[in-house]
Amino acid sequence: MPKHMKLGAFLMPTGHHVAAWRHPDAAADMGLNVDQYIRVAQTAEKAGFDLVFLEDAAGLRDENARTASQTSRSVGFEPLSLLAAIAAQTSRIGLVATASTSYNEPYALARAFATLDLLSGGRAGWNLVTSASEIEAANFGAEGLRKHVDRYHRAGEFAKIVAQLWDPADRSAPLNHTGEHFIVEQGLGLSPSRQGKPVMVQAGASDVGRDLAARTADVVFTAAQTLDSAKSFYDDVKARTRAAGRNPDHLKIMPGVSPVVAATREEAQAKLDTLQSLIPDEVGLSLLASYLATDALKDLPLDGPMPELQATQGMQSRQQLVVEQARRDNLSIREVARHFAGARGHWRLVGTAEDIADELEAWFTGGACDGFNVMPAFFPGELDSFVALVVPELQRRGLFRRAYEGETLRDNLGLNA
Amino acid sequence: MPKHMKLGAFLMPTGHHVAAWRHPDAAADMGLNVDQYIRVAQTAEKAGFDLVFLEDAAGLRDENARTASQTSRSVGFEPLSLLAAIAAQTSRIGLVATASTSYNEPYALARAFATLDLLSGGRAGWNLVTSASEIEAANFGAEGLRKHVDRYHRAGEFAKIVAQLWDPADRSAPLNHTGEHFIVEQGLGLSPSRQGKPVMVQAGASDVGRDLAARTADVVFTAAQTLDSAKSFYDDVKARTRAAGRNPDHLKIMPGVSPVVAATREEAQAKLDTLQSLIPDEVGLSLLASYLATDALKDLPLDGPMPELQATQGMQSRQQLVVEQARRDNLSIREVARHFAGARGHWRLVGTAEDIADELEAWFTGGACDGFNVMPAFFPGELDSFVALVVPELQRRGLFRRAYEGETLRDNLGLNA
Repeated sequence: MPKHMKLGAFLMPTGHHVAAWRHPDAAADMGLNVDQYIRVAQTAEKAGFDLVFLEDAAGLRDENARTASQTSRSVGFEPLSLLAAIAAQTSRIGLVATASTSYNEPYALARAFATLDLLSGGRAGWNLVTSASEIEAANFGAEGLRKHVDRYHRAGEFAKIVAQLWDPADRSAPLNHTGEHFIVEQGLGLSPSRQGKPVMVQAGASDVGRDLAARTADVVFTAAQTLDSAKSFYDDVKARTRAAGRNPDHLKIMPGVSPVVAATREEAQAKLDTLQSLIPDEVGLSLLASYLATDALKDLPLDGPMPELQATQGMQSRQQLVVEQARRDNLSIREVARHFAGARGHWRLVGTAEDIADELEAWFTGGACDGFNVMPAFFPGELDSFVALVVPELQRRGLFRRAYEGETLRDNLGLNA
Repeated sequence: MPKHMKLGAFLMPTGHHVAAWRHPDAAADMGLNVDQYIRVAQTAEKAGFDLVFLEDAAGLRDENARTASQTSRSVGFEPLSLLAAIAAQTSRIGLVATASTSYNEPYALARAFATLDLLSGGRAGWNLVTSASEIEAANFGAEGLRKHVDRYHRAGEFAKIVAQLWDPADRSAPLNHTGEHFIVEQGLGLSPSRQGKPVMVQAGASDVGRDLAARTADVVFTAAQTLDSAKSFYDDVKARTRAAGRNPDHLKIMPGVSPVVAATREEAQAKLDTLQSLIPDEVGLSLLASYLATDALKDLPLDGPMPELQATQGMQSRQQLVVEQARRDNLSIREVARHFAGARGHWRLVGTAEDIADELEAWFTGGACDGFNVMPAFFPGELDSFVALVVPELQRRGLFRRAYEGETLRDNLGLNA
């Protein structure tokens, strides 16, 4: 097992906490201010993070404009252009953007990421998503959301074409692909970057998502609340990777973590309490309903328990997590909404640098992950706190690099080892 | 009439002359070297150019890999990412990228250009093309190239949606568009940039292309060989703009010009002769056949005359220019190929700074254009020559700015006047 954990900085307008925009120390304009993004990426690079990561949805997340305006998540730059601008002002950190297989064409997407890969000197990565949102479907002329299995079927053919177009050995050969979803005749033409080809990232945690990742991904982002559930996911995906004929060390699994760190436990808890108190019920419930892809909550009492929910065509793995958590902790709908809205279903850690390093170390050395995708509550302050307090503690313990090993994202992730 | 002409710098890997890649002073790696592009854009910005311009085709231009490798045009970055990187290293020059209405979706395209517009502080422009190339069709699963009129029908609906999404007054309102080609429900969400919305550029010169431009474009790029033909195009498009209820001063018409400038006429001619002598017949003929969208030339004697050609679904206006020119000058196929390949059907000027300024002045003050899209034979040297020799001469005559008037592309183009 590699001795160093991998760290991603998950960028997000204003911050990951849903009430970040109400916090006086948050960069409220980050969503539309490229300089803020560049400064945050430079902070992460100085600390030795492997990569910055941008999620994406080509549409407004929340159909209710009033609610959308009360979250930090209603507006966003197109991520590839943003990363190209960041590439011009950084030199070592990886640049991972999300793009959908449902609303793009494989030739155009392969070319755009190959361009970012060349522009950045071999630091690009693609986070493949299949677009579960009704909202995106509404902006791309689809009559309805594709079924889960259909989306993954298209995604499988899409990923295969992109991998062939990116194959460093074969960039100028014609592809001559005629499949069920796509016809692509030509090769890409663009030379391979210093890392050969962009890194492939995935986050789908369903059965079909895990299989696609095992066949094609270099990195898997995931959400887990407990060491046991993280370890079970880790073991399963690594086994599938081995079964697909690949070296499991070449697939890095990185759960999301929402750390709230301060010099003392009391200060850290107070910081979180302040943020949680800023979440309006309306926003918490709206986001919860959106993540669960259900409107079954809206007429239920806020202080009552979570109902049983039918599986939907939406985010299957996230939904499972949320519902499991509510049952485990016997939470009311308001509590689930607030708790979930705050950390968005990811693992939350609150405490000193030692507390947080203890937990990260336990997961990493316990075989539950290869590193973490860090989701600061708000930018830039909470990334700064993590970098100032937690990173040095991890370095002191020999768990995180003090300098980049290589020049490319693939090198730093250890994918060429 | 505004007293200053507008100038664009048409960027191109290696250079616009087809044999640029064989010239010892050309940046042979420009197509894959972002730093070269940034340096060239900074040169143009220092000289006060209104904009840099990137054409695009999502595919390899030449199906013959051997010929493609002998031109400078076989490989290219995805232009929006490239311009985002350039945006981060420049501050005043406009950034215009080409993108197709045939192989994109209007919501995604509107969002990507709105992102570039915000990233650059209000300097973005979109050059709308309908994609005439069979090659792109082959990479996007289409069964065949759409007919000219169908492409423009789709383009018209596409441009209308993008204009609505960009409307600075109405960015958060739902669009609720259901048309023949597209369904788009949401608004864009992204705030307007400092210039309100990206500049709209077009280059189609056919009848239906001129009408689309008159209704929707801020800038028209065109190709003309003589002052008379340029003036006739100019008068026609301005009249159509007036007929569409718009102020004709708000549509800027910029013909392409391929200048070869030196301290003396003899030096300039020698520079051109060197470049022309570097064009292989195979490359000249292949490019000519590709531009004419015909294979009717390939069995004809190279020293014989140009044949009559059927109109095709390909580039109608360019084809007309080439064939007219051959008839006018009584050229052989080889001569047409070499002549055309060298300047790509655009207006070529060879001489001293005074010679070239005389011609540009005659067109500008003669009512044939609002400015020029400058196409240097190779980069960076031939842009440097134009900037060092021609720009000061234009400034001395009061025909070109000495400093940017505004901060945005729209301001500098005088579109808000």
